[in-house]
Amino acid sequence: MNAIKSYIKQHKERFINELVDLLKIPSISADSAYRNDVLKTAEAIKKSLEKAGCDTVEICKTDGYPIVYGEKIVGKTLPTVLVYGHYDVQPPDPLDLWYSPPFEPVIKTTEKHPDGAIFARGACDDKGQLYMHVKALEFMTATNQLPCNVKFMIEGEEEVGSANLATFVKNNHKKLENDVILISDTGMIANDVPSITTGLRGLSYVEVEVTGPNRDLHSGLYGGAVANPINILAKMIASLHDENNHITIPGFYGKVEELSKEERAEMAKAPFNLESYKNALDIDAVYGEKGFTTNERNSIRPTLDVNGIWGGYIGEGAKTVIPSKAFAKISMRLVPHQDWEEITQLFKTHFEGIAPKGVKVKVTPHHGGQGYVTPIDSIGYLAASKAYETTFGKTPIPQRSGGSIPIVALFEKELKSKTILMGFGLDSDAIHSPNEHFGIWNYIKGIETIPWFYKYFTEIFE
Amino acid sequence: MNAIKSYIKQHKERFINELVDLLKIPSISADSAYRNDVLKTAEAIKKSLEKAGCDTVEICKTDGYPIVYGEKIVGKTLPTVLVYGHYDVQPPDPLDLWYSPPFEPVIKTTEKHPDGAIFARGACDDKGQLYMHVKALEFMTATNQLPCNVKFMIEGEEEVGSANLATFVKNNHKKLENDVILISDTGMIANDVPSITTGLRGLSYVEVEVTGPNRDLHSGLYGGAVANPINILAKMIASLHDENNHITIPGFYGKVEELSKEERAEMAKAPFNLESYKNALDIDAVYGEKGFTTNERNSIRPTLDVNGIWGGYIGEGAKTVIPSKAFAKISMRLVPHQDWEEITQLFKTHFEGIAPKGVKVKVTPHHGGQGYVTPIDSIGYLAASKAYETTFGKTPIPQRSGGSIPIVALFEKELKSKTILMGFGLDSDAIHSPNEHFGIWNYIKGIETIPWFYKYFTEIFE
Repeated sequence: MNAIKSYIKQHKERFINELVDLLKIPSISADSAYRNDVLKTAEAIKKSLEKAGCDTVEICKTDGYPIVYGEKIVGKTLPTVLVYGHYDVQPPDPLDLWYSPPFEPVIKTTEKHPDGAIFARGACDDKGQLYMHVKALEFMTATNQLPCNVKFMIEGEEEVGSANLATFVKNNHKKLENDVILISDTGMIANDVPSITTGLRGLSYVEVEVTGPNRDLHSGLYGGAVANPINILAKMIASLHDENNHITIPGFYGKVEELSKEERAEMAKAPFNLESYKNALDIDAVYGEKGFTTNERNSIRPTLDVNGIWGGYIGEGAKTVIPSKAFAKISMRLVPHQDWEEITQLFKTHFEGIAPKGVKVKVTPHHGGQGYVTPIDSIGYLAASKAYETTFGKTPIPQRSGGSIPIVALFEKELKSKTILMGFGLDSDAIHSPNEHFGIWNYIKGIETIPWFYKYFTEIFE
Repeated sequence: MNAIKSYIKQHKERFINELVDLLKIPSISADSAYRNDVLKTAEAIKKSLEKAGCDTVEICKTDGYPIVYGEKIVGKTLPTVLVYGHYDVQPPDPLDLWYSPPFEPVIKTTEKHPDGAIFARGACDDKGQLYMHVKALEFMTATNQLPCNVKFMIEGEEEVGSANLATFVKNNHKKLENDVILISDTGMIANDVPSITTGLRGLSYVEVEVTGPNRDLHSGLYGGAVANPINILAKMIASLHDENNHITIPGFYGKVEELSKEERAEMAKAPFNLESYKNALDIDAVYGEKGFTTNERNSIRPTLDVNGIWGGYIGEGAKTVIPSKAFAKISMRLVPHQDWEEITQLFKTHFEGIAPKGVKVKVTPHHGGQGYVTPIDSIGYLAASKAYETTFGKTPIPQRSGGSIPIVALFEKELKSKTILMGFGLDSDAIHSPNEHFGIWNYIKGIETIPWFYKYFTEIFE
């Protein structure tokens, strides 16, 4: 990978500007009002792959948003790397907490990003991290150093559950044939503590609706005499955790992977400062399942969080109403061996079962996916580790992440290859939050590190 | 009250059209976007009082929306009736549940209103019921039959807590001097079961805010490790009732008036059909405090209801977020002897006290008011009872209402006179709900009944 540093130095400004342009398109897959923008983003990704050197790029239709597929095949006997990423982004709400508009990228320095960071929805998740791969390919083709075959599969529905990707993968085994899958959609511990994600949590996302009376009622005339769906919903949600913050759904923990003392001791070695963690979030205490540390709670333990709740009068002032309905969006993060479809069913059965008389309860599954654990002795992991060593000067730490990329388990099942999660973002980059950003240093470091992965993977593979 | 029936017959269409015009102005006091409409409504009320025969009408400024004051004095030795009402209305949300726009009145028949009902926000609460008094005055002045003095005090902030009315009343003892206060802002049992409201519940309305982390977080990366303000809010709300649906706030029941067995037996005589009640609301069971009947639960017992809740992502689709904040609007209906300011303080202390570490809780009182009970042997009650007998052919039943008109207790304290609650609406009129309406029959019956009250009150008073 000769001259990677000088190539980057020469083109750095353009790399940044291209990403900024991509971030200006509000590709919010959850909101159908942005449909044209999502489609426009797929076109932009196609063009960028063509410019970066792909031989063929196609926009593959699905029942939802299209998948952009591109490839550059340099030799039949050479290994193939399949890059996965997504061009859709999370909704930017609440808008009033953004310091600058989410789709008007600005570059500002922060404490953790003294070289500047790009602030925009999708900067890190996943447009920025995806674009590192496009630019890494550009370098390798421009300098004639691509050591193996490469395929790109970039979808537009990751933030809404990848509903159509599974079908695409199942129907395109041949096209997607590969020796390793490479994804940058996770983070690392710190700029001076590189890490590779070796585990992801699964996910079950549901929406619940509690219906009381058939119309909104005056809380004076009916208050105290009929079940108020908000009060009932609150009670039902509260009952989902016991006093030790264990989840109370029968069977929920049945298949949870229990780590050994040794494994937990190993995990505990990762650098973590509870005071800094609390200070960064401005909280006076952490909160979670009894008997586990913060790092364990958000990686090896399953969770249940309400992601949204609404019902009744939520405008300015006061309204004395008992609403007819109350709603919540609830997600559960799952750990290896928990099956998301089974958990979704357990939730549904339990939640409908605890509804008191006087209300009707409906549970609608949104989407979900299995958790994933990747071995650290695979060729892919070794190549990635060596790549980080080369560019960071340090061996990366294997780390379980609390996040989910539901489709990863499916990739392994369908395509029979391991996924390597090379993430360059930081936890503090505020993905899914207002003021999401991605460090310029991290963006550039990613572009620099990825070609080394190709090199080492090809070498070890042979 | 000669010729009241023929006068009404002659002018009925105009009476309806004038009310329809008044209902077209969206005087939503809770939402500052409607400020001009609220003010416009005050002007309309002023004009209608002038036309109905008041000698002087003024729009009295307050720190909020103005109070319309009008009077017609016919003799210094004659008694004076003070009519109170409000020209503001509840917000119409949720708009999508209205069959016709809330401020475009339409007349339709219903099962309970075979002669038709006017559908519009404020039709019953309180523009329609208030306007009965204006038209009753018109009849009495037009036919030279007004037997006593009359004063009107019509405010524009009832639906947001009458924040400025108390000051107005305190500063205008002389102007507001009266012998009885007459209000139509309640209901009656049925068109063939007239009733007079003898009790109102008090109210304490608060807003609560639970803050967890200082920003919205990704529920994968942080889920299970920090307190989620929605889960915490649900837990806190759930804990406000015990398994028997008693309210758990320490001291809450301390001053609650406990009715005797005899009083409860008397109450139980009011016609009530549990099956019809459940069918009308499409619920399979009623729900409330153990040991009390439905009619008791919503009249002689205090309650706590969440009127609105919101937090996190409430848009289309899914977002895996742990929000920084969650909110709820909570109101408590209070019974005689409970002091609303004391209860508000008890709530605040308790709610802030049960917040777990990891969140901050803020309780903001909105407004409130004391409960009220009126004796059934007062001149006012006797006059009202006789008026109903004259026009309905039946003695009205004295009935405790679950609703609140917080200002009534203050009237008695400041103006030393009793309030008579002559309501002509039905519980099924959907006040505070979508599709609020007011029966044409009820509207006309109110206009017919009110002049008899004036007559009998004056006669008994002498």
